[in-house]
Amino acid sequence: MIHDNTEFTVTPWKVEGNIDYNKLINQFGTERISNSILNRLEKVTGDIHFMLKRGVFFSHRDLNKILDWYENNGKFFIYTGRGPSGNTHVGHLIPWVLTKWLQEKFGVNVYFQLSDDEKFFANKDATLKSTYQFAYKNAIDFIALGFKPDNTKILINTKNANNLYPIACKIAKKINLSNIRAVFGFTNDTNIGMIFYTAMQSAPCFIEDKPVLIPLGIDQDPHFRITRDIAPKIGKIKPSIIHGMMMPSLTGINTKMSTSIKNSVIYTTDIPNIVKKKINKYAFSGGQSDIKLHREKGGNPSIDIAYQYLRMFFEPNDMKLKKIHDDYTSGKLLSGELKQMTIKKINDFLSSHQKNREKAIEKIDEYMIK
Amino acid sequence: MIHDNTEFTVTPWKVEGNIDYNKLINQFGTERISNSILNRLEKVTGDIHFMLKRGVFFSHRDLNKILDWYENNGKFFIYTGRGPSGNTHVGHLIPWVLTKWLQEKFGVNVYFQLSDDEKFFANKDATLKSTYQFAYKNAIDFIALGFKPDNTKILINTKNANNLYPIACKIAKKINLSNIRAVFGFTNDTNIGMIFYTAMQSAPCFIEDKPVLIPLGIDQDPHFRITRDIAPKIGKIKPSIIHGMMMPSLTGINTKMSTSIKNSVIYTTDIPNIVKKKINKYAFSGGQSDIKLHREKGGNPSIDIAYQYLRMFFEPNDMKLKKIHDDYTSGKLLSGELKQMTIKKINDFLSSHQKNREKAIEKIDEYMIK
Repeated sequence: MIHDNTEFTVTPWKVEGNIDYNKLINQFGTERISNSILNRLEKVTGDIHFMLKRGVFFSHRDLNKILDWYENNGKFFIYTGRGPSGNTHVGHLIPWVLTKWLQEKFGVNVYFQLSDDEKFFANKDATLKSTYQFAYKNAIDFIALGFKPDNTKILINTKNANNLYPIACKIAKKINLSNIRAVFGFTNDTNIGMIFYTAMQSAPCFIEDKPVLIPLGIDQDPHFRITRDIAPKIGKIKPSIIHGMMMPSLTGINTKMSTSIKNSVIYTTDIPNIVKKKINKYAFSGGQSDIKLHREKGGNPSIDIAYQYLRMFFEPNDMKLKKIHDDYTSGKLLSGELKQMTIKKINDFLSSHQKNREKAIEKIDEYMIK
Repeated sequence: MIHDNTEFTVTPWKVEGNIDYNKLINQFGTERISNSILNRLEKVTGDIHFMLKRGVFFSHRDLNKILDWYENNGKFFIYTGRGPSGNTHVGHLIPWVLTKWLQEKFGVNVYFQLSDDEKFFANKDATLKSTYQFAYKNAIDFIALGFKPDNTKILINTKNANNLYPIACKIAKKINLSNIRAVFGFTNDTNIGMIFYTAMQSAPCFIEDKPVLIPLGIDQDPHFRITRDIAPKIGKIKPSIIHGMMMPSLTGINTKMSTSIKNSVIYTTDIPNIVKKKINKYAFSGGQSDIKLHREKGGNPSIDIAYQYLRMFFEPNDMKLKKIHDDYTSGKLLSGELKQMTIKKINDFLSSHQKNREKAIEKIDEYMIK
């Protein structure tokens, strides 16, 4: 229950209120991604992804340890995923794009979990058929980002239960009802699928006998807090994690883009006119109420959704982004003009992405574990 | 906690105290297998298995309904199983032998579940490797009873998770924490594998889109009480069940034969001398304290373990059994003589069974769902 606008809730199944990512670092007990760790990452990879530089990925657990391991010639792998409750929106792509970059830089295997079981358990009206179908659709978007089948495998929980359930059993034996309630606050009404599910989400952490790095939205962290507690009990290394922010809703910076919130979402399959309409009509503006005032006082990019979409995802070029930022702040760039630039950037991305999606549909089976 | 010798506990994970099967019918809310239902079964099958006639299978749920269905040309299938916590003992064979008979009489498919996950969750010291190995060993005994691979399939939960987990998900969504606690009395210390597990045990009930008949030891009934509550909620017919007694321990009629109770067990791999020693040394006798008294007063077959083993399993011939019963009761047959007859019967059975086990080892893969 949210009582005032400084309160917020972030769990794997509910994100509401005005999210304060700084407070989340304290609440969850994670570490901030510091400049020193970014410098170290840049030394190792020769590069630094703009989402890391700009703080879209802002928090971590044991990132140093996995870099230690890698620098001592140790192999690791990457695991990320998606709860297939609906079609893919652009916010879902944030951790996947970082995953792609990390895979290239470190030359490692990637496992992508689609938790059709979870979304079936969590949503009263969902059928297993519907979440399974969304799993396939989401997988297409994932593949479309350029992953290759030789080092990338997709796990759909009900389809790949043979791969996951035996590992989940080993994890589940180490988690009791008290543990699970302390982390997720389940009640007597919670179904036993939900209660068991965290073990299925943990399972891919141990699918290879190597350390794992997990890029994810910070709302998923509670699952891996449990995994990290259990890892030493089953003779495994604690997973390392990089936590990302969630892409904000069209309607405002403090709400997560979510299919369950009306007018909040840009889907990966939206056509140019729809994107144009959504940005023009719904994207919250940090501009002033009229042009005269805007020229005088300038806009506020920190709450401007069009600007934030560029910053978080659609404008990788730092110089261009800085110019937009400065022009908007000074009043030189109007809110409507900023929206047009953003619409173009999004549509350019989606045009290419949608072509890649068509190719992905044809080769999806190559990514599936038999 | 058992406070006096009229108290007993029967759950899927614990059978202790002096089991009163009549009271269990009331406690569990099942129906007694009446003469009228036996007559009906005999009309349908042309025969009646001695275990049914002798009340070794004594209780049921909806046996009439599955006979109605069958008589109206409906198809059904049979499901039974085993929790692979150790090697197979002769008590385990009781429901499997009835299963074989039912399969022949009704011409139906049989599914045999080996819950390596359950036994891993339930036993602190068990490894998944050990329960999986016991699953294979138990499967060999099952096959050795004469099941054929064309109409019999073996499911090992962690090996066949692809077949079972998606069905288990549909079941699990309909069971909440309150439901599960009411049936099994789990506590905050219970691991989440155990909490979810009942859904895996229910899953084979719906592996074919037909009604199912389940022969089992009555200790397993609580799982299927839940299944029967859920079946209509997922558009399925409630399973029909036939409940068997559990073979008593060597040490006495009121204890279950169990690998966890010392000197209680005859294993299917015991060699003749071991069987001889166990029966002679440990089998509780209903005879009198000396031969003179025995000749005068006679023995009590109702508490005599050697006699009970013949009645429940090893002497299918009713005439022969009656003669043994009457001779023992009259004092004509001594306890030692009864034991020798039982040793011979058990060793004859095991000699043949052990040969069949060797053949079963070679063809076990034919019974596995790929």
